[in-house]
Amino acid sequence: MSDRPPTSPRQERWDRRMEVPLAVASAVYLAGYAVRVLARDQLPRAGVDLCLGAILGAWAVFVADYVVRLRLSGLRPLRFVRTHLLDTVVVLLPLLRPVRMVSLYDRVQRRRDEPRLSLYARVMVYSGLTVSLLGFAAALTVYHYEVDAPGASIRTFGDSVWWACATLATVGYGDMVPVTPVGRLVAVGLMACGLALLGAVTGSFSSWLIQAFTREDEKPGGGRGGDEGRPPGGFPGAS
Amino acid sequence: MSDRPPTSPRQERWDRRMEVPLAVASAVYLAGYAVRVLARDQLPRAGVDLCLGAILGAWAVFVADYVVRLRLSGLRPLRFVRTHLLDTVVVLLPLLRPVRMVSLYDRVQRRRDEPRLSLYARVMVYSGLTVSLLGFAAALTVYHYEVDAPGASIRTFGDSVWWACATLATVGYGDMVPVTPVGRLVAVGLMACGLALLGAVTGSFSSWLIQAFTREDEKPGGGRGGDEGRPPGGFPGAS
Amino acid sequence: MSDRPPTSPRQERWDRRMEVPLAVASAVYLAGYAVRVLARDQLPRAGVDLCLGAILGAWAVFVADYVVRLRLSGLRPLRFVRTHLLDTVVVLLPLLRPVRMVSLYDRVQRRRDEPRLSLYARVMVYSGLTVSLLGFAAALTVYHYEVDAPGASIRTFGDSVWWACATLATVGYGDMVPVTPVGRLVAVGLMACGLALLGAVTGSFSSWLIQAFTREDEKPGGGRGGDEGRPPGGFPGAS
Amino acid sequence: MSDRPPTSPRQERWDRRMEVPLAVASAVYLAGYAVRVLARDQLPRAGVDLCLGAILGAWAVFVADYVVRLRLSGLRPLRFVRTHLLDTVVVLLPLLRPVRMVSLYDRVQRRRDEPRLSLYARVMVYSGLTVSLLGFAAALTVYHYEVDAPGASIRTFGDSVWWACATLATVGYGDMVPVTPVGRLVAVGLMACGLALLGAVTGSFSSWLIQAFTREDEKPGGGRGGDEGRPPGGFPGAS
Repeated sequence: MSDRPPTSPRQERWDRRMEVPLAVASAVYLAGYAVRVLARDQLPRAGVDLCLGAILGAWAVFVADYVVRLRLSGLRPLRFVRTHLLDTVVVLLPLLRPVRMVSLYDRVQRRRDEPRLSLYARVMVYSGLTVSLLGFAAALTVYHYEVDAPGASIRTFGDSVWWACATLATVGYGDMVPVTPVGRLVAVGLMACGLALLGAVTGSFSSWLIQAFTREDEKPGGGRGGDEGRPPGGFPGAS
Repeated sequence: MSDRPPTSPRQERWDRRMEVPLAVASAVYLAGYAVRVLARDQLPRAGVDLCLGAILGAWAVFVADYVVRLRLSGLRPLRFVRTHLLDTVVVLLPLLRPVRMVSLYDRVQRRRDEPRLSLYARVMVYSGLTVSLLGFAAALTVYHYEVDAPGASIRTFGDSVWWACATLATVGYGDMVPVTPVGRLVAVGLMACGLALLGAVTGSFSSWLIQAFTREDEKPGGGRGGDEGRPPGGFPGAS
Repeated sequence: MSDRPPTSPRQERWDRRMEVPLAVASAVYLAGYAVRVLARDQLPRAGVDLCLGAILGAWAVFVADYVVRLRLSGLRPLRFVRTHLLDTVVVLLPLLRPVRMVSLYDRVQRRRDEPRLSLYARVMVYSGLTVSLLGFAAALTVYHYEVDAPGASIRTFGDSVWWACATLATVGYGDMVPVTPVGRLVAVGLMACGLALLGAVTGSFSSWLIQAFTREDEKPGGGRGGDEGRPPGGFPGAS
Repeated sequence: MSDRPPTSPRQERWDRRMEVPLAVASAVYLAGYAVRVLARDQLPRAGVDLCLGAILGAWAVFVADYVVRLRLSGLRPLRFVRTHLLDTVVVLLPLLRPVRMVSLYDRVQRRRDEPRLSLYARVMVYSGLTVSLLGFAAALTVYHYEVDAPGASIRTFGDSVWWACATLATVGYGDMVPVTPVGRLVAVGLMACGLALLGAVTGSFSSWLIQAFTREDEKPGGGRGGDEGRPPGGFPGAS
């Protein structure tokens, strides 16, 4: 949200210090959840407990971070919840958390001082990674709820991933569809992600094109060089 | 329509005064319709009558408002219908009315003097709310017409909502589809809404991106600050 | 195509003079085709002949117009075909012709000196009408080829229209699909139209949004007037 | 990738010299693969060997080109792989190669000194050709893997092409879907292409529209000429 109050230096320091721990906790949470869902029956007693421990531990980190942020903001709890709606949702549904790992990837790449990608490429990479992680989490959850449902068409984790891909691309073959209420709820969320992904793809393509055209407009005749056969502007095309 | 004649002060006063009553009537209409459709068999005789009364009452408010507007405009009826095509459609199909509640929400928030959202966020919120309301109304109507149709795949209201979501996202699984003529007519309308929603999402994303890029272009090197890992411009992303 | 040679005054005069006859011929062609397809069995012998005559007569007008244009252009036939690819396709497949009626509609409205719609509204109206006409023609053709095919799911003209709508919106339920080669070829063409329609919708929405934002940017604080709750710029929204 | 190091004159000379051989090798590869897949059972022993020879020969050309590029770049192998990710993928999956033929087509047209298409038309032609070639390659591969799979719905090459079209347009009827892991992997790739195609179509339409509007804005009243009924800017519309 763009209307949140300005962050104080202490908050910023906290944000920067928690970046890595939160990303690690997110990865642990996702891994624990994945193992628990995918290896349900094969897992020994101790393994199940370990997974549960990892999940709960990661969750505890998220809650602690949320509470500290609430304190640092100096706001009343209800107002904090209202202005940090997304943070609140993410604390309650930590499966949406892995998205944080994306921003970490960007940060690491910047620290190594590698040349930055253009805005369009970054939007593509960002949305690609985000959507992959959310799609994986959704496939896990849907598989978890559908596998034992009577009359379900999603029977293996592979089916679930296939369904998630078809949904994210808004193709929607319909050969496999969730039939349980929770599965359908997750599916609706995934459809929203698919629409946003589509928006990101078409949006970045469109703005790249507009920029390329504007640039070509400004240097008339300049487009007649050697490399001109391919579209201008360094968009990642097949070469 | 952008080519309607300029509104007089009296018309504007009427518009402002009717904003709340019309929104209330819309809510009453939608509620009455929902109760009548969803609780058909369980409802006692009096309840059915109450619902019908609410629906007809709300409709009367819509018609009265339409007639007053026609008078205030000073146009001949046929010309008024031609230049206010949308208003006419909405009077005949009051289920499209709930959209008005969206504009009320915006107005209330402005009166409380809360900081305004950016144009993109407003477009997102607007189209999200509008689409939810229309999707709900469409799910109701389709359920109403499909539930008793022979060979129908939409059997419960949950099915109908699931179908509406898959249609709005243009995913279209096809596990559930309307089979009656009225149901299909509503479905075609909903598909048009889905296309418009897609246009709103990709359009606002694209323009946000163009603006973000233009801004970054103007301050060269300025993007190297601490918060630069995430996309610029305050778009509501997962953080 | 933007690279066709400049038209001479004689060509322009011919274009203007043929506008109405061609549109009428297109309407006659479409009507004849529709009657022949939809009323196949009920039609008496004379009716069938009449339809066929109308179709062939309209086609003759198209071919004559094409030949005159070829003469007026002063180009060799092969070069004319290359530079007027679209015209050539339309002569061979006159069902794509009805699109011409759209441009006539615009012309008529201009002659009556009515206030012009904004570019966005015109793009919406244009693509809406074009897509409706092409969808109708496609539904006719698919129905014509599918109705007697073994194992077909499209059995009535209503089914065919329903399938065309789901295809144009890229929803694609899959409850009804063409199974004959010709039907599938038409379907692929319709999918391309669907993509173009999507492009038109999102494109015009996106550019309207960019323009609206730019305008709001230029008059800071100016957006605080009475009508500001709704999105700026006069886009045809529900009111 | 826009962050690859600048190319030396020797590299550029190599690029230019290899353009035609690589395109020929791509065509040979695709043709050999198509014959092998489509005429599996009818082909005599010698034909199979010939196809295999053509495929391997073309692949050898790709690998040789890759190695020469690696040498000319002067980079360590691992770094070259990292900065030329796309080239590496294309060497491993030569079916993605035919895309190169598109750039050749453009080059040939330029050499003949024909008038250039506008950027929008070029983007359309480019993405159209690319998508057709990738769709063809995907249909081949899916057919290859699905034809003998138990419970498969894709039984003929025609089915496979039909499925590829429905997937690329993100329509996704679901009457035919791949059921083998490889087929589904290819399908996911094709969905990504479909999203990119959609982005290209809506993007170019949107930027064309913005440009057209800006131009009309600048010359007020200038749009009242004879040709004004159709949308401005020479977009390839039906005429």
